[in-house]
Amino acid sequence: MIRVGIVGATGYTAVELIRLLLRHPEVAITQLTSRSDAGQPVESVHPSLRGRLATEISAYEPDRFAAEVDCAFCCLPHAASSPVVRELVARGLRVIDFSADYRLDSAAEFSRVYGDGHADPERIGKVPYGLPELFREAIREAQVVANPGCFPTTAILALAPLVREELIETSDIIVDSKTGVSGGGRTPKLAFHYPECNESVSAYAVGTHRHEPEIRQIVGRWAGSGIEAHFVPHLIPMTRGILSTIYLHPRSGVNVGRIAATLREFYRDEPFVRFTETLPATADVANTNYCDLAVRPVGSRVAVISVIDNLVKGASGAAVQNMNVMFGFLETMALD
Amino acid sequence: MIRVGIVGATGYTAVELIRLLLRHPEVAITQLTSRSDAGQPVESVHPSLRGRLATEISAYEPDRFAAEVDCAFCCLPHAASSPVVRELVARGLRVIDFSADYRLDSAAEFSRVYGDGHADPERIGKVPYGLPELFREAIREAQVVANPGCFPTTAILALAPLVREELIETSDIIVDSKTGVSGGGRTPKLAFHYPECNESVSAYAVGTHRHEPEIRQIVGRWAGSGIEAHFVPHLIPMTRGILSTIYLHPRSGVNVGRIAATLREFYRDEPFVRFTETLPATADVANTNYCDLAVRPVGSRVAVISVIDNLVKGASGAAVQNMNVMFGFLETMALD
Amino acid sequence: MIRVGIVGATGYTAVELIRLLLRHPEVAITQLTSRSDAGQPVESVHPSLRGRLATEISAYEPDRFAAEVDCAFCCLPHAASSPVVRELVARGLRVIDFSADYRLDSAAEFSRVYGDGHADPERIGKVPYGLPELFREAIREAQVVANPGCFPTTAILALAPLVREELIETSDIIVDSKTGVSGGGRTPKLAFHYPECNESVSAYAVGTHRHEPEIRQIVGRWAGSGIEAHFVPHLIPMTRGILSTIYLHPRSGVNVGRIAATLREFYRDEPFVRFTETLPATADVANTNYCDLAVRPVGSRVAVISVIDNLVKGASGAAVQNMNVMFGFLETMALD
Amino acid sequence: MIRVGIVGATGYTAVELIRLLLRHPEVAITQLTSRSDAGQPVESVHPSLRGRLATEISAYEPDRFAAEVDCAFCCLPHAASSPVVRELVARGLRVIDFSADYRLDSAAEFSRVYGDGHADPERIGKVPYGLPELFREAIREAQVVANPGCFPTTAILALAPLVREELIETSDIIVDSKTGVSGGGRTPKLAFHYPECNESVSAYAVGTHRHEPEIRQIVGRWAGSGIEAHFVPHLIPMTRGILSTIYLHPRSGVNVGRIAATLREFYRDEPFVRFTETLPATADVANTNYCDLAVRPVGSRVAVISVIDNLVKGASGAAVQNMNVMFGFLETMALD
Repeated sequence: MIRVGIVGATGYTAVELIRLLLRHPEVAITQLTSRSDAGQPVESVHPSLRGRLATEISAYEPDRFAAEVDCAFCCLPHAASSPVVRELVARGLRVIDFSADYRLDSAAEFSRVYGDGHADPERIGKVPYGLPELFREAIREAQVVANPGCFPTTAILALAPLVREELIETSDIIVDSKTGVSGGGRTPKLAFHYPECNESVSAYAVGTHRHEPEIRQIVGRWAGSGIEAHFVPHLIPMTRGILSTIYLHPRSGVNVGRIAATLREFYRDEPFVRFTETLPATADVANTNYCDLAVRPVGSRVAVISVIDNLVKGASGAAVQNMNVMFGFLETMALD
Repeated sequence: MIRVGIVGATGYTAVELIRLLLRHPEVAITQLTSRSDAGQPVESVHPSLRGRLATEISAYEPDRFAAEVDCAFCCLPHAASSPVVRELVARGLRVIDFSADYRLDSAAEFSRVYGDGHADPERIGKVPYGLPELFREAIREAQVVANPGCFPTTAILALAPLVREELIETSDIIVDSKTGVSGGGRTPKLAFHYPECNESVSAYAVGTHRHEPEIRQIVGRWAGSGIEAHFVPHLIPMTRGILSTIYLHPRSGVNVGRIAATLREFYRDEPFVRFTETLPATADVANTNYCDLAVRPVGSRVAVISVIDNLVKGASGAAVQNMNVMFGFLETMALD
Repeated sequence: MIRVGIVGATGYTAVELIRLLLRHPEVAITQLTSRSDAGQPVESVHPSLRGRLATEISAYEPDRFAAEVDCAFCCLPHAASSPVVRELVARGLRVIDFSADYRLDSAAEFSRVYGDGHADPERIGKVPYGLPELFREAIREAQVVANPGCFPTTAILALAPLVREELIETSDIIVDSKTGVSGGGRTPKLAFHYPECNESVSAYAVGTHRHEPEIRQIVGRWAGSGIEAHFVPHLIPMTRGILSTIYLHPRSGVNVGRIAATLREFYRDEPFVRFTETLPATADVANTNYCDLAVRPVGSRVAVISVIDNLVKGASGAAVQNMNVMFGFLETMALD
Repeated sequence: MIRVGIVGATGYTAVELIRLLLRHPEVAITQLTSRSDAGQPVESVHPSLRGRLATEISAYEPDRFAAEVDCAFCCLPHAASSPVVRELVARGLRVIDFSADYRLDSAAEFSRVYGDGHADPERIGKVPYGLPELFREAIREAQVVANPGCFPTTAILALAPLVREELIETSDIIVDSKTGVSGGGRTPKLAFHYPECNESVSAYAVGTHRHEPEIRQIVGRWAGSGIEAHFVPHLIPMTRGILSTIYLHPRSGVNVGRIAATLREFYRDEPFVRFTETLPATADVANTNYCDLAVRPVGSRVAVISVIDNLVKGASGAAVQNMNVMFGFLETMALD
């Protein structure tokens, strides 16, 4: 039995995380913190938790937090997270960080992409990327894990096995993603105001989204060389789910069957990646930790379709999976 | 004042067409036909038309229909449409055909794509494609106009000016489209059952959709040579609207600014195509006949974002625009 | 041809009003004002208006506004509206006020319900309530018209003819309303954040909503005595539309047929109220100025179902209809 | 460990039931039957179950089914269910029946409401109604349990404690319910076609819905006398959830505080009914077995707001809860 705490407990990923942790037989939630809602019962912030969790939300105070927690989930915005992670690690906690602060290769790259300095530059680059399917051994031993971005999860799981086997051209990959609105967080903004996004679809951050470097760098680790990924996200009128359509050039002599077989084989024993013959919909993975992958020819190209629930495999489910790996629990615990 | 009739008046495109025609000062709706709903008042099929249109739905009978109609809108499925078009043309009517029967280059191509014989093989290939922005002169004189497909409208308007100016590689165009559910028609099917498509997104007909040849052939007319277009449609949880994200390779020496300028210039005087600096959403064109286009760099590629209301510019609005051109009305009549 | 201006031109009712006015052959839009967006082109606030209206948004300045406008639409919040209305009336304009400032019987009642003082206490009580179906003659001559609330429109149109004929008990009327989210306005708030209201329904302001006194007072004018109306609004996951289910006790000796006949007869010649035999859905009236009414027995009670588009008959369509009446235009102009 | 089987395994309640049962540590799913999909792997019917359940769907054959099952869930339409229930009971199984066949007081009443004869007239009337909160002891010993209707669940849980304490007038109860579309089942119909129900709300079966007698009879058992309930369901654009607004007349001398206190006290120790001070939304109970209740004054009336997930507490969650009670498992097993 371990004690877990959440720093930044008022967003959608936090409430999803709490729901999963409440089902987990090996953890007790001992700390929930929030600057804005300190002093409130958790159910006043998340009414779905009425009567399910007595923990009161408190202000984050590192010593007190560390005294009551073995494993911390840090759900803070980028740049705000790394100072807290450093504090908690210094107090002996293992930390799963939801922000982008430890996902990229270096502090310089972080600053280039996010426009902020980095509070923990020595650690970034040494922290495993939290996809157990690709980095399980490193996660097992890690003090800190960088929980993946939602869009990158769909793309990296599709691409890593293919670049490893050198089946595709790495210089021209297109990732066209469609996401539900919960990915935008819980802070009210005009872009996420119901009448603005209902009955509408739009592209945003075309060619400039911060998840593009994340895809590029993590896939690059498996390619053994640089890759070029063009990434365009789209906002669609639903709450949960991401579908990415990934357009690939097979290398000369590689056909769609070999690409399909490679993915099927790579994930054969993975509990949370399902290679499917039929085309998956995001509804198939809603409220689950699955990533479903399918492959189709499209003229001279190949398309991989990759779907997840952005709040589960794209955030809180991945975090619980990482915790399970780190603490030696059954990897599927609380996730099936 | 002309008399218009609709063959196949029970679907979503038909009711949208009726709504537009009711606003048109130069037309009178004299015939509405349907096999399944003959004998019913139109409002029993389309409750939104309560009290707005007295016309009763009748069974289609060519002589009677022709006696009361100058301009026919044929809203029948592919293969079912061309026999009716031929009958009506023989009786002197001008016809706007919503089906795919006259969009492709030849009866052979039609049969290859749709798997059916063609009932009017001599006419296919001579019928103008109903995008006035690209084929206005031919439409003006035409006896029959092939009303465009909804997805092709978004792609062809984006691509035709660019291939004409030889700005892009024509061998590798990707069209990733997102459509609302009304594009699937009004016949209940599991795929369009509310709980199946709500809160979900899925790709379908990946690399095999019948609109791909339509895009390829019509754009090819402007390219002066064959082109290759990869097309993947996605179903998203909304009723109306299509957004296509079109990934292009600029030719050597062509930058994104030139592509933007070319589109802006080409459509400068067009009433229904708006080149926009900000990224358009389908909500911006809902219930209108506009196609909004924007351009962005995406790494070494360029993306064109193209949005329409699939029931208006993608179907019934285009049909009214075509009628206006054919009969010498102001082109925007009933459409603004 | 008259010149019209909109004070407070950035919300949903304003953009809907602009869309309608752009279709109106007898008006020119000369002024659009907004504190927050002064100096911007209208399309930067309302992208759907790209290329359709050159008018720039300006800061409201009464003299300049009055110099260019014959008919003002005032789309300000309650309490902020009446000072502006007074200013514009003093400068000779006729005004259609979207706020609640002139809907109730007295300044005292306004203060009780809205908790604010009233800036124009002598006018309130003398301003006609802007439902032409019920108060057409007064509207025709009015300097100021109080444009109705959205929920009250559904209830008052259903109830007024029935209380006038003394067909129902006035001491126990229940109005259970379901509204789309656009009724909450365009300012981002957690309650209207997409992931909060999608896939959810909730009741709010149960028994305490400010539209209850409005229903009570306006229906009371037709009853000739006080009435008691219980009102509960519900927020449902759609953008536009209100459906009210109104539960009535018929007076002794009155049956459902008589209630239906009374409504049918009362609205027989009205262009925008349709009595329907089949049960109406809000989709039947979407984007139109119709109110559809149907009647059904429910045990010993009778239910009237009343549907509108809250942005059209519930706001901007009603305003245009009022303008048409005030200025002697055809009442349906720009509305069909 | 018990063996469970589902007769009629292709609908929404069945897939929800399978999801819950897969989490249950004390059951093994051994039989899934369907006439239309016999011979198919379950994931071809329910793609969300890919890789989670090897059981193939088979044709229902009573002897084979009974040989492999201890507890049967019968998810057949009304009238089709009771013959199967009878067969399975004859073979010694305990059965939880999702249909309406055993919910009413008598075969005569069933025939009056449903228009069909009853295949098991001796059992109807002796079968406990499957709300453990109200009928736990009877359920514990039962051979057959009548799983409640979705709308009745919201109404009965709200009303039973109040009529038992004689706090409200039983002659005039209004139940205004709003339901998501999954309640209409999985068979495609125009009424549930995405573009028909998206962006729309409508009332249906006004005063004639078959759940009205169910509410009346079950609440009547707690009232000790007949009650009159007016019931109007509404279809709203979401997949899951029911919110019922229940309008009550308190008896003379009863105030809203006493009604609230009675409900709070009655359900104090119940794991799945939460009395809430804040107004509940259906999102608060989505994917859970909770029923949340709140109370508010509305003029001289009192409103009880009652929300459930129609597929969980309104169907499959209630069924698992009943199974837990019947077989002596912890009542919350697989449900929290």
